[in-house]
Amino acid sequence: MTGFFGSRWIETPSHATEVAGGLPNGFRAAGVACGLKPSGALDLGLLACSAQATSAARFTRSGTQAAPVLLCRERVQLDAIRAVVVNSGNANAATGRRGFEDAAKMQGSAALASGVGNEAAVAVASTGVIGVPLDMSSVTTGIVRACHELRPDGDADFADAIRTTDAYAKRVCLDVQLSGGSVRLTAQAKGAGMISPGFATLLCFVQTDAALSAETCDLLLGVTVKRSFERISVDGQLSTSDTVILQCSGESGIEVAPQTDDELRFGEALDAVLRQLALSIARDGEGARRIGRVVVRGGDDRAVDAVARAVADSPLVKTALYGGDPNWGRIAQAVGMALPGTAPLPFDIAIEGVQVCSRGAVVPHDAAALSAAVARDEVEYEIGLPGEGAETERFFSDLGHEYVTINSEYTT
Amino acid sequence: MTGFFGSRWIETPSHATEVAGGLPNGFRAAGVACGLKPSGALDLGLLACSAQATSAARFTRSGTQAAPVLLCRERVQLDAIRAVVVNSGNANAATGRRGFEDAAKMQGSAALASGVGNEAAVAVASTGVIGVPLDMSSVTTGIVRACHELRPDGDADFADAIRTTDAYAKRVCLDVQLSGGSVRLTAQAKGAGMISPGFATLLCFVQTDAALSAETCDLLLGVTVKRSFERISVDGQLSTSDTVILQCSGESGIEVAPQTDDELRFGEALDAVLRQLALSIARDGEGARRIGRVVVRGGDDRAVDAVARAVADSPLVKTALYGGDPNWGRIAQAVGMALPGTAPLPFDIAIEGVQVCSRGAVVPHDAAALSAAVARDEVEYEIGLPGEGAETERFFSDLGHEYVTINSEYTT
Repeated sequence: MTGFFGSRWIETPSHATEVAGGLPNGFRAAGVACGLKPSGALDLGLLACSAQATSAARFTRSGTQAAPVLLCRERVQLDAIRAVVVNSGNANAATGRRGFEDAAKMQGSAALASGVGNEAAVAVASTGVIGVPLDMSSVTTGIVRACHELRPDGDADFADAIRTTDAYAKRVCLDVQLSGGSVRLTAQAKGAGMISPGFATLLCFVQTDAALSAETCDLLLGVTVKRSFERISVDGQLSTSDTVILQCSGESGIEVAPQTDDELRFGEALDAVLRQLALSIARDGEGARRIGRVVVRGGDDRAVDAVARAVADSPLVKTALYGGDPNWGRIAQAVGMALPGTAPLPFDIAIEGVQVCSRGAVVPHDAAALSAAVARDEVEYEIGLPGEGAETERFFSDLGHEYVTINSEYTT
Repeated sequence: MTGFFGSRWIETPSHATEVAGGLPNGFRAAGVACGLKPSGALDLGLLACSAQATSAARFTRSGTQAAPVLLCRERVQLDAIRAVVVNSGNANAATGRRGFEDAAKMQGSAALASGVGNEAAVAVASTGVIGVPLDMSSVTTGIVRACHELRPDGDADFADAIRTTDAYAKRVCLDVQLSGGSVRLTAQAKGAGMISPGFATLLCFVQTDAALSAETCDLLLGVTVKRSFERISVDGQLSTSDTVILQCSGESGIEVAPQTDDELRFGEALDAVLRQLALSIARDGEGARRIGRVVVRGGDDRAVDAVARAVADSPLVKTALYGGDPNWGRIAQAVGMALPGTAPLPFDIAIEGVQVCSRGAVVPHDAAALSAAVARDEVEYEIGLPGEGAETERFFSDLGHEYVTINSEYTT
């Protein structure tokens, strides 16, 4: 085991144990190469649950949602998803009516070939170039082949098949101890910032054999997505295709009932998984050297959120992080930008525990210690705003030459 | 004359003529080196009007405004500014109470040494590193020396003294024909995006010997700043120190009265000057290769503004511009990000007149012609949203390796 949980910023629950692999009971998956990627790499993934599953889903709020997202919102019973079909290499975005029909064909083919039957139980996702119609004969052939290859340990191939520019696969397999016994929790994600051809996308699929009601499933996914994927910034760009789905087969026979200790334990494991996946995505962003975490505290939820976002999205902060530069003036600038009309604002800044700014003014500090601290892999920034009671955080990648190279030299 | 007006996007009024230099009647300026810049370059500028001038000013809305901005807002009579003292090399930002007192000392010294007398008639601006207290003995000595060097053609030295990382000076001198004769309009600006040590800043000082009431002065400055400096994005970062001041000496004896043809003519010249200066700042941004203009049309002012801002600020759009990549999918992504919750949005995209997307879906287009068009110096993007009647634009620089190098390798 190399260890999935690699950051000091993620608390790993003591009741969760990382295991080598294998999907939870009731799930099978596959990944095949159907020819969408010129490289011949895996580009079609299928995931199916043999039981009548409960589920929950979250999608991008973009006004230019890709066809599969529109399809899922319109034609999928989001609390009872049994199968997921995903292609990489083409986002099926900005493809109009034809794109929507192609997504519907993917849904229909997967429902038929996987034996799920009911189309409304099949979710669809696509990631890759945009504005290019899908090659449906390749996709359909791929779906049929993937159905034949479904197997309980197919999660690794599935995770590979949904990758685009990710430098490494992002998946995890945990056993979570609940009061009635152990349940399995697995997840596969892709995303490396909006850096791929056209743009990249966050996709994340989570499975468990615990039994959760659809309401509990939705509640836990909603809370944990807010604390994970909604707290990362590679370049501040919202994708057309972001999709997160949690499916529960119930095949372990162990129930996670609302407002129980087990709900808390399961939720903590899910939270750790999604937060670590989010962090892995931010770290993968444009071959980032370093990753930053900004924690903002104050008396106003809206203000701490605006400041965290402004700092995490700032190209000035990101380039300083890349350069290992303790340039806290850029943090001060981002704070002021996030809260127009509040000058003079008495704000505090600490970097890796070294206070550099108090009530809006520089304070003497050990510059050498600060320089050494910001040269490490993870850099933490703490910002204090007036008041108390509100707190949030954001994780963000740096902005370096690799980002520019990848994004400027790719030609559609 | 090399020609100040260099872009097809700026309409140059036929009644304005570029001249070699020299401030309008009543104004004198100087720039000296007082030692704030380690290079020994000019770093203190002074500009003074011998007459009882009218004026107007605009400042950054940042919540972390620098001390000189706070001072101007609190202790300057903004409709009667006679002198401006500016230093580069130190922004006097995040310097707390001491910073405010230092800005007040600059104001007092300039009022005394220049003979203006009334401190409230002296505006102060600073640009450069932040979080470092000003070396006031150097600044004070510099102010006294600058007062001795004030002269009618000191605008070139003044423009040099306010520069930080600008690759070139930004100034212009125009004669504007009004019904009663010719008035002079001059301007000096600095800014190359938020790329300098700490961050950079937009400063712009404009002078005329036309006679404008304080109300007319404020009205014209407000309208033209909205159409110029508020429409550029280098990296979407709001500075702590942005300052724009228009001063009118009235020494030509030619009045620009409200709601007259002369007001329109003077306004057009001011508009062209500020728009070209804004464009020059965007072009200077991080040694940009290319500059983009996005024009957004639709039925909703808020929506066109949000889309224009999202496109102009997008690092994906900016890197594509840098690479000469006709990657319109990134435009589609930015549109969707700006207008969450509107999917499916029927939007149109044209690049350099080539339509690539209609009602949300790709349309066949000449890819070769498009590739050639985006390889030129200026690239125009047009976006259509539903409805009619609203329109805006943004100018933006690309995002390239130079930006990363400048911003990551500088160490405070």
